[in-house]
Amino acid sequence: MNRKPTLAVVGATGAVGTVMLQILSQHADIWGEIRLVASPRSAGRKLAVRGEDLEVLALSEDVFDGVDIAMFDVPDEVSAQWAPIAASKGVVVVDNSAAFRMDPDVPLVVPEVNPHAARVRPRGIVANPNCTTLSMIVALGALHAEFGLRELIVSSYQAVSGAGQDGVDTLRRQLKLVAGTDLGTRPGDVRRAVGDDTGPFPEPVALNVVPWVGSVREDGWSSEEMKIHDESRKILGLPDLKVAVTCVRVPVVTTHSLTVHARFEDEVTVARAREILATAPGVVLFDDPAAGEFPTPADATGTDPTWVGRLRRALDDPTALELFVCGDNLRKGAALNTAQIAELVAGERNSS
Amino acid sequence: MNRKPTLAVVGATGAVGTVMLQILSQHADIWGEIRLVASPRSAGRKLAVRGEDLEVLALSEDVFDGVDIAMFDVPDEVSAQWAPIAASKGVVVVDNSAAFRMDPDVPLVVPEVNPHAARVRPRGIVANPNCTTLSMIVALGALHAEFGLRELIVSSYQAVSGAGQDGVDTLRRQLKLVAGTDLGTRPGDVRRAVGDDTGPFPEPVALNVVPWVGSVREDGWSSEEMKIHDESRKILGLPDLKVAVTCVRVPVVTTHSLTVHARFEDEVTVARAREILATAPGVVLFDDPAAGEFPTPADATGTDPTWVGRLRRALDDPTALELFVCGDNLRKGAALNTAQIAELVAGERNSS
Repeated sequence: MNRKPTLAVVGATGAVGTVMLQILSQHADIWGEIRLVASPRSAGRKLAVRGEDLEVLALSEDVFDGVDIAMFDVPDEVSAQWAPIAASKGVVVVDNSAAFRMDPDVPLVVPEVNPHAARVRPRGIVANPNCTTLSMIVALGALHAEFGLRELIVSSYQAVSGAGQDGVDTLRRQLKLVAGTDLGTRPGDVRRAVGDDTGPFPEPVALNVVPWVGSVREDGWSSEEMKIHDESRKILGLPDLKVAVTCVRVPVVTTHSLTVHARFEDEVTVARAREILATAPGVVLFDDPAAGEFPTPADATGTDPTWVGRLRRALDDPTALELFVCGDNLRKGAALNTAQIAELVAGERNSS
Repeated sequence: MNRKPTLAVVGATGAVGTVMLQILSQHADIWGEIRLVASPRSAGRKLAVRGEDLEVLALSEDVFDGVDIAMFDVPDEVSAQWAPIAASKGVVVVDNSAAFRMDPDVPLVVPEVNPHAARVRPRGIVANPNCTTLSMIVALGALHAEFGLRELIVSSYQAVSGAGQDGVDTLRRQLKLVAGTDLGTRPGDVRRAVGDDTGPFPEPVALNVVPWVGSVREDGWSSEEMKIHDESRKILGLPDLKVAVTCVRVPVVTTHSLTVHARFEDEVTVARAREILATAPGVVLFDDPAAGEFPTPADATGTDPTWVGRLRRALDDPTALELFVCGDNLRKGAALNTAQIAELVAGERNSS
């Protein structure tokens, strides 16, 4: 194929869509036409991409005419309906919803970890993992390739933007109520100050941490925890990997952080793990506590890589490593990985 | 002994000392004279305890004359110097510094877990554990008694008051700088807004999480992580317990939270674990996600017990439980446990 491929961005006006357009303007320009698509409510708006203003089109069957690849960032039910329609017209859909991630006929792809999987897509759909999985999996994929992963025990520190703009707006409203006060020391004082204004969260998130992300699943698990469990296994190709997760929301705007206890097949050394992480694509090793170096959301926000620090061998288990990872949940956690998959598929078309 | 024992509170004017005085005013009044002691700088101030104003005395050898029990909450080096002086005068010292916790001749006591240990104190000193250890150990002690603990993998979400009033003041200053802004979305914006005003923390703590608590130890570990490792083993009487810890500071004023992956000798059931936790002294089981019930710092602050929720059996390991615990780091984490130990020792003296 000599013609440059045509790309559709479905959900172009959302928080992740906005970052997608920034990335398309920053990355090497491999695309022919770019078509912006959103709900009828947003149709007609103009958005800048690659330095030109494009009018947003309303989602319909016709918008996929002549499209080669489409990046979707829309609610699960919208993807469930529209991705198969686009695929039936020959479009390769890269979907960032949860609708198809665990479908055995849909590959779940992280280009640094399992790029080969994107080539086999019986339904014409490639799924993008959940933002929390993506915030750690590049670093873990690199370590797995060397040491052979056996078990993951993970705790998250998740940013409010994982719940969309409503999550960000809610934290900002709550921060205005608590800043400049002496709240946080007496029983119930934060809850009284915030009242019922908890937005998409079940509890106040300012001056608080909330050990609940997602909806209720069996036996006390949250949907977010099950996603990390199931998606890690699928991406790494380890259907029996032991994965224990607790997801917690924290009052941070952008960037998900995770503590990881990773147990491998045999003894590991920090020296070798450092070599691997220092050269792994998509990873920044930032790890010298004596010099004040360890990653935080304040470092990772707005950047592409997974930041890794606090690397230690477990004190009582020579087969396990401890690490702390940070990843921008809107970039690598969503828009960037989706764009990388689209670029991977476009490259495969060019080389075929 | 028929006379009510005389109590000294050393460090009475600090953040923990203030809570100690509140607790002495709330608990059953078993004390005869109460003597308040602090640095010469604070001497002469008047503080209320048991409804009367007492003048604060400057720390000296003489203030321990006639004292039976002394509760110390002072810096490590002050305890290291003064606790042995008090003990040499026959005072039983209950010390909340890190100076003696790992001394084999000093018991490390949590009254709900190992009250018997307080009776054997060759140096006349009983140590109070670190606030982070205390925020989880009551719940874990109850589960260990039933199931036999083998391994702990723990991540903390630690409040800024763990770094004293300076920590609280620093978060409050930073919150004023970030509230009402759109900070937290662009590279470096939180760091630029906060500047060098990070107080006792190595990085900004508002709109951020900081994976570093304490000072640098060997092989990348922090002093706080080593405390949790070493103290958990000593309190539970399990010198070979596997303990993996990562400590993280979060923008919460009061109450430390922890995620815990606890592996036991044999298979466990959530039903039995719930029975144990529902009746364990010092524990509140608050665990019904479908009804929106799980503990947060907003619930636990200002209360005495360890709050436990998110109880699940590990998905891939029938011998392991996941839980989320919250404990007020100034109450059970410091002043309350110290007061409980002092009451335990006083009761032992009365019954002897």
